[in-house]
Amino acid sequence: MAGLDPAQWDEMRALGHSMLDEMFDNISTIAQEPVWQPPPDAVRQRFTQAPLPQEGRPLEALYADFAQSVRPYAVGNRHPRFMGWVHGGGTAQGMLADMLAAGLNANLGGRNHVPVDVERMVIRWAAEMFGFPSDASGVLVTGSSMANFIAILTASRTMVGRSIRSEGVAGQGLVGYAAQTAHGCIARAFDMAGLGTQALRRVPVDAHYRMDLSALRVMLAADRAAGLKPFVVVGTAGTVDTGSSDPLDALADLALAEELWFHVDGAFGALARLSPEHAPALRGMERADSLAFDFHKWAQVPYDAGCVLVRNPELQAATFAQTLDYLSREDRGLAASAPWFCDLGPDLSRGFRALKVWFALEGFGTQGLGQVVARCCGVAQHLAERIRNTPSLRLMAPVALNIVCFRVDVPGVDDLDHLNAELVKDLQESGIAAPSTTRLGGRLVIRAAIVNHRTTEQDADIMLDALMLLAERRLVLP
Amino acid sequence: MAGLDPAQWDEMRALGHSMLDEMFDNISTIAQEPVWQPPPDAVRQRFTQAPLPQEGRPLEALYADFAQSVRPYAVGNRHPRFMGWVHGGGTAQGMLADMLAAGLNANLGGRNHVPVDVERMVIRWAAEMFGFPSDASGVLVTGSSMANFIAILTASRTMVGRSIRSEGVAGQGLVGYAAQTAHGCIARAFDMAGLGTQALRRVPVDAHYRMDLSALRVMLAADRAAGLKPFVVVGTAGTVDTGSSDPLDALADLALAEELWFHVDGAFGALARLSPEHAPALRGMERADSLAFDFHKWAQVPYDAGCVLVRNPELQAATFAQTLDYLSREDRGLAASAPWFCDLGPDLSRGFRALKVWFALEGFGTQGLGQVVARCCGVAQHLAERIRNTPSLRLMAPVALNIVCFRVDVPGVDDLDHLNAELVKDLQESGIAAPSTTRLGGRLVIRAAIVNHRTTEQDADIMLDALMLLAERRLVLP
Ligand SMILES: Cc1ncc(COP(=O)(O)O)c(C=O)c1O
Ligand SMILES: Cc1ncc(COP(=O)(O)O)c(C=O)c1O
Repeated sequence: MAGLDPAQWDEMRALGHSMLDEMFDNISTIAQEPVWQPPPDAVRQRFTQAPLPQEGRPLEALYADFAQSVRPYAVGNRHPRFMGWVHGGGTAQGMLADMLAAGLNANLGGRNHVPVDVERMVIRWAAEMFGFPSDASGVLVTGSSMANFIAILTASRTMVGRSIRSEGVAGQGLVGYAAQTAHGCIARAFDMAGLGTQALRRVPVDAHYRMDLSALRVMLAADRAAGLKPFVVVGTAGTVDTGSSDPLDALADLALAEELWFHVDGAFGALARLSPEHAPALRGMERADSLAFDFHKWAQVPYDAGCVLVRNPELQAATFAQTLDYLSREDRGLAASAPWFCDLGPDLSRGFRALKVWFALEGFGTQGLGQVVARCCGVAQHLAERIRNTPSLRLMAPVALNIVCFRVDVPGVDDLDHLNAELVKDLQESGIAAPSTTRLGGRLVIRAAIVNHRTTEQDADIMLDALMLLAERRLVLP
Repeated sequence: MAGLDPAQWDEMRALGHSMLDEMFDNISTIAQEPVWQPPPDAVRQRFTQAPLPQEGRPLEALYADFAQSVRPYAVGNRHPRFMGWVHGGGTAQGMLADMLAAGLNANLGGRNHVPVDVERMVIRWAAEMFGFPSDASGVLVTGSSMANFIAILTASRTMVGRSIRSEGVAGQGLVGYAAQTAHGCIARAFDMAGLGTQALRRVPVDAHYRMDLSALRVMLAADRAAGLKPFVVVGTAGTVDTGSSDPLDALADLALAEELWFHVDGAFGALARLSPEHAPALRGMERADSLAFDFHKWAQVPYDAGCVLVRNPELQAATFAQTLDYLSREDRGLAASAPWFCDLGPDLSRGFRALKVWFALEGFGTQGLGQVVARCCGVAQHLAERIRNTPSLRLMAPVALNIVCFRVDVPGVDDLDHLNAELVKDLQESGIAAPSTTRLGGRLVIRAAIVNHRTTEQDADIMLDALMLLAERRLVLP
């Protein structure tokens, strides 16, 4: 018996094949299941009570637990009527890619092996997709939260000098700018980087939820007058609440004139560049100094898979590369083939995310992914149109991409916030569809984010019909 | 046609089964393959030259490329004679777990679904494994680099106050301490956190590569006298170069007396606590305020899977939790079931790493994993014994756990560093075995890290025999 390998390969093989079959069954029939169902207490107790296992248990028994207690009680983002948050739907192709990756068990921190070439390839492809130079540097990470953090670190080290790395950020007076609609992870990046969230100035937005550049100019001038050092401005391509995008081309001009690092958070929105119809709205994104985006959102790659690109390849390595004896790069052998990905971000050991990204980009092509984008935006427009035509519903924000914010709004209801919050929970618990809620201008709104490649106009209709029925139950609608 | 789902499920199913079969073949016969082979230029060109795909390509063709050009040219860490770096070997069980996880495509940032309960369970189990209180908080991350970063942030926010989060680290005079043998990611954590690497004081080590506590006391006193604010001391359980461990129990006493946060980096070494024979060497680890360790190393879980534990559950959330409108936690529905893992670290979207960790812990049991540890350490002792008995070899560091540092040392050779470096590359290129090199006290040494569950004493013998033959080719050995 060698280590943890099975005594009987045949048994494990057979079990593996039935797991695979059942996962295929599960994915191919997902639309017939409830989007989501609340996990029963008895199911939860299997996990909240289980004692630390001393002896091993057969894989068959573990799988039975998974099939019975985990698979039916997942979050529902694979379902065509999951519209709650900006989650990708995943694909069977992605499942197979991750199976291969886990079986190979490659560590992508570095060294001399082809998996590293695969990651270099997908970074080069990503650069081309988003109009960056072909020698831009980049690295796959867990998600856009980490990608944005890497960009903020690279921006600060570049604009102030590498001395920050040894001496810290103290005394630099660094400040940065992002719209009020920017994702919370930008402020978190300032927090983690030791700059403090107050060093991130929040710029007001216009009626279309886009950054107000004249307000930004006033803020910049005031900070400079106060002796502070503005170093970065963050534009968003596809904000999380409404799908609006900042005026990226004008921001690129401003950053150039003001000598600021221009970073774009394109977590999901960046992918819209693959749709000829939607690409123009993101003009200027290709001028960014760095770009954060996800493959696990609109590109439908299984979780997790984010990415950061940095236009000038030397700057990312200057921010992260260390020299460690045991990682010395050699002329030949296993320790050759620098530069390594561990020199481009916080992680040393890293999984083979690049395989599922390769399979998605080459398996569907940029056209296939662009069609998913266009289709999701089409469903959002259809939904918006129906909302406009329904007297008891009100559209609460312009629909720029794939996110629709609206709410039930009928005369005589005191607390519309409460009504809409309860309706969304009712709808989620019905299993029919799962939008979410957010707040816009202090008001609670229903938010339908169309990110799943399986979602059709009919799904949007079913969601809205169910919502109206539930509303009728709570009110007598006019 | 719904989105990116296949037109023909049957075809994809059949292809999936043959992928799975071939991966089983590949894993179960891995010992018969070369540990590693240099990737031919023609293979690399497939990836360095490939243009960005506009149209999709059949999955079958992608898989053929993977089988021909990627799988044979991986880093080799699954092979029993890979001894190069602290890499886990992976398991077929882990491959199946990741297949299920990718097929389910859960996002573990939060929300109300059972996958989150699975992660809570493995965190609770990890706390028990390492002697932490059962309500300790924790989160799965990419690896120990990220886990150590989270711990350093938590330590600084706790010791100085949450105000750091908004106001930044400037003006605090924060300093921390780790042995000279600490992993490079500790300094990187100080760099990323904005403290600067100079704020990490490097404490000298004794002849056993363990932190010298009297030196630490002198450094602490000097820093306090200079008006600085010491906030953390980092002990290592299993240093990366030699496998030594700092005197953790004494460090815990010192941290208590000096009012410092006590963090332990147990990237691989922490797992030694599961072996009754080796646990005593880590006494005191269970007293740490926080602990970083990996499942992808000695626990053989596929990449990537690291973990951080924080003794006092409130402190980790106080370091990371934000409030974001669209993430509001509800009383029922999909957005219930707080606290969420996105409140405990930098990531919002997060994959279902917990599934493969669950399967490893419950499938092998703590006893099974403890036996892997004991076995690897036994192989290391066997190797050390053979080295001691071979006149042309010299052991270069005490063997505390599973790492053996040695070198070929024969009279009349001018440049032993060069000789040993070349020998290691020769050995890697032979495909027979793959140790690595590092530097100890300025001298280049051969480093054999025994981390793979498949490695036996015979593998160590084969490695050493091959090395001796290669040495004979380069020298006429006495
Ligand atoms: C605009 C934007 N930025 C950043 C993020 C965070 O990305 P991730 O969840 O991949 O960390 C999101 C997530 O929805 C987002 O919509
Ligand atoms: C002692 C120690 N700490 C930290 C790390 C970094 O861990 P990871 O590669 O999982 O980021 C390592 C890696 O070998 C290590 O040995």
